[in-house]
Formats: sequence, C-alpha cells, structure tokens
Amino acid sequence: LQSKLPHVGTTIFTVMSKLAAETGAINLSQGFPGFDCSPELVSLVERYLRKGFNQYAPMTGVPALREALAQKAFDQYRVAYDPDTEVTVTSGATEALFAAITAVIRPGDEVIVFEPAYDSYVPAIELNGGVPVYVTLTPPDYQIDWQEVSQKITDKTRLILVNTPHNPTGRVWTTDDLQQLADLIQDRDIWIVSDEVYEHILFDHRTHLSLMTHPVLQERTFVVGSFGKTFHITGWKIGYCLAPKELSAEFRKIHQYLTFSTVTPIQYALADYLNDPDHYRQLPDFYQRKRDLFLAGLSQSRFSFKPAEGSFFQTVSYVNITDEPDYDLAVRLTKEIGVASIPVSVFYQQKNDYQMLRFCFAKEDAILQEAAQRLSQL
Amino acid sequence: LQSKLPHVGTTIFTVMSKLAAETGAINLSQGFPGFDCSPELVSLVERYLRKGFNQYAPMTGVPALREALAQKAFDQYRVAYDPDTEVTVTSGATEALFAAITAVIRPGDEVIVFEPAYDSYVPAIELNGGVPVYVTLTPPDYQIDWQEVSQKITDKTRLILVNTPHNPTGRVWTTDDLQQLADLIQDRDIWIVSDEVYEHILFDHRTHLSLMTHPVLQERTFVVGSFGKTFHITGWKIGYCLAPKELSAEFRKIHQYLTFSTVTPIQYALADYLNDPDHYRQLPDFYQRKRDLFLAGLSQSRFSFKPAEGSFFQTVSYVNITDEPDYDLAVRLTKEIGVASIPVSVFYQQKNDYQMLRFCFAKEDAILQEAAQRLSQL
Ligand SMILES: CSCCC(=O)C(=O)O
Ligand SMILES: CSCCC(=O)C(=O)O
Repeated sequence: LQSKLPHVGTTIFTVMSKLAAETGAINLSQGFPGFDCSPELVSLVERYLRKGFNQYAPMTGVPALREALAQKAFDQYRVAYDPDTEVTVTSGATEALFAAITAVIRPGDEVIVFEPAYDSYVPAIELNGGVPVYVTLTPPDYQIDWQEVSQKITDKTRLILVNTPHNPTGRVWTTDDLQQLADLIQDRDIWIVSDEVYEHILFDHRTHLSLMTHPVLQERTFVVGSFGKTFHITGWKIGYCLAPKELSAEFRKIHQYLTFSTVTPIQYALADYLNDPDHYRQLPDFYQRKRDLFLAGLSQSRFSFKPAEGSFFQTVSYVNITDEPDYDLAVRLTKEIGVASIPVSVFYQQKNDYQMLRFCFAKEDAILQEAAQRLSQL
Repeated sequence: LQSKLPHVGTTIFTVMSKLAAETGAINLSQGFPGFDCSPELVSLVERYLRKGFNQYAPMTGVPALREALAQKAFDQYRVAYDPDTEVTVTSGATEALFAAITAVIRPGDEVIVFEPAYDSYVPAIELNGGVPVYVTLTPPDYQIDWQEVSQKITDKTRLILVNTPHNPTGRVWTTDDLQQLADLIQDRDIWIVSDEVYEHILFDHRTHLSLMTHPVLQERTFVVGSFGKTFHITGWKIGYCLAPKELSAEFRKIHQYLTFSTVTPIQYALADYLNDPDHYRQLPDFYQRKRDLFLAGLSQSRFSFKPAEGSFFQTVSYVNITDEPDYDLAVRLTKEIGVASIPVSVFYQQKNDYQMLRFCFAKEDAILQEAAQRLSQL
C-alpha cells in the first residue's frame, strides 16, 4: 500500500509523552492538564449516562448544547449564530479542523499557513489535494508581515488558517491583524478556518479577538472551539464549529461522514455546565497564576523568554546556553534533567531551529516549581 | 462556497427520525436500540470518570482496550492481531470507514461498491477523488454475481467495500463469497474495507464469516467493528479497525488527523467489559427473539419477507399491496399508521425502487408487537 502521507511518522506528542513516561520525567510536552476536571462536570455526565442518554445524538449536536454555544458566542462576542443551522458539535477540535478544511479545499487549491503551525493542519490540507503556502513567523515576536501574506495570495488561494491564541508561541492576534486580514480577503473567494481552542486563556488583561467579531471575516470564517482545553477534559474529545449558514451546511456534509455524531451524555452534561459562565471566566486567572509561577522559577535559569500572551504554552530560548539542535536538547533534558518539552522546530515545515523549546504549564503548582528548578540546572 | 458534495441533502436517518418524533410514530427507521445498555457498563464508565481518566488517550487507543480487542479476534476467529501495531480504536465505525477509505484511495482510483449500500461509503470515496463502481444486488436474495464483479474490476480498481452482515438487507456472506473474492484479488493491488459492525448479530445458527478468517483476504483487509451495535451504545461513538501492520500504519496516519483519539473513560470501561465474552455471546439469541416476534406479528399483514440472516434490520416487500414509491409509502406509514421505516431505494445510487422498506427491530418487545399490528392495517 503506497502511503498518502509518506512523511508522517509518529507524532512528537506521542514520542515525547512516551519518553517522559519511560524515564519518569515531568511531562511538560503534550498539551493536556495535569489535573482533573471539576467533579460537578463528572456528576453531570453520570446523570445523563444513568438517565439512559446513550444512543445517537442528532448529527449536528444535541439542541441544548448548540443553543448554549450560540448563547456563549453572543455573551462573549456579541455575535448571533443560529443554533439550528450555524452551530455544529464535533468529536474534538481536530475533527472540526479536518471537516472545515475538507469542506473548502479541492486538488490544486492553495492554503496560507502561518508557521510554526499545529501539526494537523498540513496533513488535512494535503489529503484534500491542497497546497500549503507558508508564511514563516520567527522569535522573539512572531509578528505577521502582512505585506508578505499579500504577496503570497494568488488566484488559487482558497483558505487561510488562523490560530489565536497561538500554539506553540502563545501569541494572540491584535485588532490590526484582524483588519489586515479583512482588507486582504474582502474581494476574494477566500475562506478562513480559525482555530480558537485557547479562546479562554489570555493573560495580562488581554481579551480574545475572535475572528467572528469582524463582520467581513465572520462571513467567511469557520471558528473552531474545544471543550477539552477549557474544562480540562482533553480526553472527552468534544469540540465545535461556528460558521454562517452556507458554510455550516457544507461543514455538516463532511462531519456527517467523518464521525456522524458525538458522545451523547457528554453533550448533555456540557450543555448544563456551559450555562454558568463562571466555569470559563475563571480560566485566565487560573492559568496566569501557573504561567507566572513557572516563569518565576525559570527566571533563576539561563533560559530567556517573553511571557506567553495566551494558551497554556510557554516557549523559551536557549540560544545563550548551548548549541544543540532543539530536538536533541528536548530529548536530553527529558533523560538527564527529567523535564520533557516539545522542540519548536517540529512546527516548521523545514524544521527551522531557532533554539526554542515549548513547555506546557497546565500542571499542578508543585510540578511546575520542580520542573523550573530542574531546568535551572542547565 | 462551492459544494464538494452537491448531491448530499439531509440524511434519511435524520429525516425519518425527525418525522417520527414530530408525528409520535414508532420509530423503526434509524438503526439504534430502543433500550438502554447494561447498568454494569455505565458503572464502569463512571468509575473511570471518577478516577480521573479524563485526558487524551493514546492516539491508537488505550493499551488495555487494544489488547482486549486482539484477544476477542483470536477467541472468535483464531486470527492473531498485534495490539500494538494492528489494532486502532476510533470515534465510531463511521470514522474507521472514512479513515480506511482515505488511507487507500487517490483521485481516479475505482472502488467496487455493492448496492444497496450504507450511506457513508460513497461520499468518503468521492471526497478522496475515488470513483465508485456499482454492483447492484436485488431482492429477494441479494446474491452477488461474481462474474459481474470480475468484469467490473479494472487496472484502476484499488478497493472493494464489503459489509456482512449487511445493512439494509440482513444478508450474510458465505464461504463461497469469501473464496470468490479471494480468487479475484489474489494477484492484484486491491485492498478491502470490511464493515462488520453487526458481527455479533446472526440468526438461525449462522456463524459470522469475518473476512479476516480467509488468509488471502486477511492480508489486505481493514476490518471495521463497532461497540455501539454490540453493547447498545450507539451514542458513545466508539469503534475500531483491525488490519495487518502495514495497513494499520497508514490507517493510523489518517486517524491521527481526523480525531486523534477517542473518549478515554469509555475506552477503559469497554476494556473491562470485553473481558467477559458472555456480554456479546448472548446477542444472537437476544435479537433473534426480537426478529421472530416482529415477523410473527407481520405474518398477519400483507407484507412479504424473507427473515433477515443477520443485523437488526428486516426488509419487507409491499409489491402486492400498493404501487406507491417506497419513499412516499414510508412517509405515509409514519403519518397515517404511526410506524417509521427507511425506504430501501435510498441505499441505491439510482434510487432503484424494488418496493421494499427497512424496519429496525432493536426495540422493546411491546413496541415491536404494536408496530406489527399497525402495519397489518395496510
Ligand atoms: C492531540 S495531542 C497534542 C495536544 C496539543 O494540543 C499540543 O500539545 O499542542
Ligand atoms: C449513523 S445513523 C444510521 C444508523 C444506521 O446504521 C442505520 O440506520 O442504518
């Protein structure tokens, strides 16, 4: 069988998590919380399990959850989505990203991808015959050069992939970024997939600028969200897509054949849980404390860094410490010092090595302190 | 946005289930159990939820579940799959089917599809640029004409889709079918996706002939299974794929970007639950009683039928009763008599109408009796 994805090996998240487990290292590599979700949310799932909500949910998601998601979008961003036709529940944000890309991209279409980029974007583009066109962002600021984006847009460009707050860099989009993007696509047949799974995790009083808040962008954007990152349930694999009716209709045609529907009792539980906005409003404070704790520890080390603006990832530079390739250093730190991270080069198509590592700080305080202390040995 | 699936409308399962809900009809249309799963299984999920197994499972599935699935394949079919490299857990059989088709099919490749066919096969083929080549099976026997299959195979044929026990007809494959298929593909670069989600539901002492039991076929087959149909949990969306190492490697590359992984606490619960084979061994008796009960009732009606050999679907002919198109009759029976079904024409590419309806008999006994009584009014 000839491979359709010959370059894909084992994902770095699996490689590093496995190495961490084997060596007993603190695992700050793969992005998942090192603590449990709220017992209240578990009880809600149990309630619907016991009530017998165990058969197929509607293909688009259970109505109560779609309504709660529309309400949340309105409360947060003052944008009205129709729960019946514009909100779709998916088996994780990964499925939503794949479905949105598949709905738009045909063989030969070009897609603007800002790199460093999350690892699922490009395979999804390629499996649909699309051609990724990279705009490379570099440390320390990872600013977007909009002139460059403009130059890379051609008649074949059909899609632009956005991710804010950004994994792995923690950068968040500004009003200027939104406006620049709107100006660029205004008169073109270009759509947008906006990965906003860290929408609730922004620091230092920043507010999330969802692409839906710009009317020109809203019309053309599939906004992808995740409950996993927001409620500490990455293992429940539930996400969603908000998009205007015409886009949602195409999105749903794909979703229907990818997974058809998503776990029923979990959907009902989340519909209830979403009704209390405090459940996500407390997230910035919760994670800012953890970021600051980790960075306070790291300030004793020789690493240099700019505090993440959002997400639960912190990238750090080791440019003044050692010349090793970032992959080698990530492996060595796991084995010798007992802290696993992700080398940022893996998020670049050409594996550009800017001597940066990514650490996930969604962990217990004591773990973060211990990890920072170990890292100060370098 | 130009549609990539212009012919896809709302799925018949959604249309009929909705109509049944609106009219208060008995819903024998969409295939899902009208009763709950075992409380023991619910308790197991609760246990792992409470234990905090709520973050990402490994991409391929939790080891305990992959081991239990390999053990089950060995116990049932005496075929050894390596749990590490040949077993993958998916977010439902739908995802597994999509992933397997995507792993094999490139633009221009031909795929042999036996129709009537489950509705997700062809869109998955088309989204990958594949070309479905139909072999049409007809009532009352739905026998496969292997001469015809042989004539339809070309240099471009890359995949054959098999489904046994068959939805919607309830037909099961014979040793002769397996041998004929093996003879056909033996010296060709052709792979097989075998949808065996009803593997545990066969009647009248038939045994399921999994394609994995024929060595020539086993080497080239992605066997797709489902827990939803077996344990009455269609809403938990969990399935799997068994395939030789090389095929599984390509399958996993796709799965990784479709959904990445599947709900963690459910995986652990099913690993425990699978360890008692009685949990699935009782299924043939359980459903045969229901089929027989339904058919005893229908024998009072003017419908004619051959008892289903497997699955939880029964097709019936109304050729001697009325001349209406099957879709119209299905709608009318829902509204006037209060029993919803699926018109079998929807499973044919050209909507061939052989005046057949499909009823799902995975329902409470009293419901089946009442439905049969209502149907006898026609
Ligand atoms: C799906 S595993 C990767 C989790 C994640 O979002 C990350 O580590 O970047
Ligand atoms: C995924 S909804 C369809 C359920 C089913 O298998 C059927 O009714 O044929």
